[in-house]
Amino acid sequence: MKIGFIGLGVMGRPMAQHLIEAGHELYLHRVKPASAHLVEGGATACASASEVARSADIIILMLPDTQDVEQVLFGEDGVVSGVEPGKLIIDMSSISPLATKEFAARVASRGCDYLDAPVSGGEVGAQAASLTIMVGGKPEIFERARPLFERMGKNITLIGGVGDGQIAKVANQIVVALNIQAVSEALRFTIGAGADPAVVRKALMGGFAASRVLEVHGERMINETFEPGFRIRLHHKDLSLALESARLLQLMLPNTAIVHQLMNGALAKGLGEKDHAALIHAL
Amino acid sequence: MKIGFIGLGVMGRPMAQHLIEAGHELYLHRVKPASAHLVEGGATACASASEVARSADIIILMLPDTQDVEQVLFGEDGVVSGVEPGKLIIDMSSISPLATKEFAARVASRGCDYLDAPVSGGEVGAQAASLTIMVGGKPEIFERARPLFERMGKNITLIGGVGDGQIAKVANQIVVALNIQAVSEALRFTIGAGADPAVVRKALMGGFAASRVLEVHGERMINETFEPGFRIRLHHKDLSLALESARLLQLMLPNTAIVHQLMNGALAKGLGEKDHAALIHAL
Repeated sequence: MKIGFIGLGVMGRPMAQHLIEAGHELYLHRVKPASAHLVEGGATACASASEVARSADIIILMLPDTQDVEQVLFGEDGVVSGVEPGKLIIDMSSISPLATKEFAARVASRGCDYLDAPVSGGEVGAQAASLTIMVGGKPEIFERARPLFERMGKNITLIGGVGDGQIAKVANQIVVALNIQAVSEALRFTIGAGADPAVVRKALMGGFAASRVLEVHGERMINETFEPGFRIRLHHKDLSLALESARLLQLMLPNTAIVHQLMNGALAKGLGEKDHAALIHAL
Repeated sequence: MKIGFIGLGVMGRPMAQHLIEAGHELYLHRVKPASAHLVEGGATACASASEVARSADIIILMLPDTQDVEQVLFGEDGVVSGVEPGKLIIDMSSISPLATKEFAARVASRGCDYLDAPVSGGEVGAQAASLTIMVGGKPEIFERARPLFERMGKNITLIGGVGDGQIAKVANQIVVALNIQAVSEALRFTIGAGADPAVVRKALMGGFAASRVLEVHGERMINETFEPGFRIRLHHKDLSLALESARLLQLMLPNTAIVHQLMNGALAKGLGEKDHAALIHAL
């Protein structure tokens, strides 16, 4: 299949690689030295997003933030200027759910289909093709894209209509951030009150306090091992999305707002490139 | 073995019952109609805590709060006025870790041993003898009490020295409360943004957002089934303990403080006797 792939960062590079290895014909934009091996492996470098869109049937985006997606889709020489009706745009970036619905409507007005399909699992998951993929869009379009998703991830769910993938991703990032803060406060309390955090963590794993975060991030906090994993800088961006949407939707997310502030503090302390378990050092 | 049991509430009654069924000779204080069946089952009703302490070798307390334990131990006709050296006091209430260390020291000055052994698992766990028991005290004293704990619970851990059981219990209640708030904010966001919370919850269970709270309390929130379970009123008390200790220890617990405030709001709305999953209605 002819697939465009725009956004060759630490996540996008291994994802595109998996698609090449599956025998697809890839069209890339902004090929830098770090992604030159993809062209050597048979992919075609294009001069613009528009050229990618003209060459491919399905165009995948994996970009940092909402504005980047908007620019690549609707900016000068953007994807939409190159598409014909019937093409499919899949946005695998983590961006605003509300903007996603608007982008999908604008794409639909050009006769094209749209899926939002943000992922979780980080660099490790991208490399191992074990990403969790949360998809929003029409069921028949989801089925068209499913073989591609299966090359990049494992836990693949159609959440609902367009935008619902992004909503699930934001919900995921809220839970993970607040669970990290829960474990941070509990371990800070344990240490400050004079008990052994490793013993307490183990005892708590047997009851209602059990979580993946207590298991994985709790251990990182106790051992002070903060190589990412998932960087505070990126999680901070995801909570910014949550709070921006919450403002527009008039939703009250008090603990998300506090953790966003604590992440501001962590960034100010130079912890942005550390694993999000290092949030314990914001206390 | 001759065992005193003081505190025959919804937790204490089934716990005492298990000890009677194990063949122990029980001495009780303040036997009300709800606990009359224990006396019919062979336990002895005593006129004071002091009389309980004189009659038994091990005295177990299962009381609502720090002041209740202080009153029963050191008040008029209290436990300490009736003990002789060599007796063992086990406080299974959930109370202040700092006060616990002081109580244990005062008890030790009378030549008696002390364990703090708070539990989690609620009424269901007390009835099923499946409580999680977090113990603080000397290892040899823990071993002396272990056969009794094994009649009341399953996941039994010696956390460390005196007070460390209470520290673990507070840490547990912080994590559970903050995980409930995490799921509350994520589901409120999901619903407010227009996606299906049941589908999102299921998708999130496959990744780093997975927790016992997302599984159990998340389902209660979605189905609006708030029969306790564990009551907001009691969880509110436990966070009060956490924040009181944090104040004395100069520890910063911002999200615990916010959830405590939200529980104030839930109590004001008359939700105190609902399961703590009903915290979603404080948003």
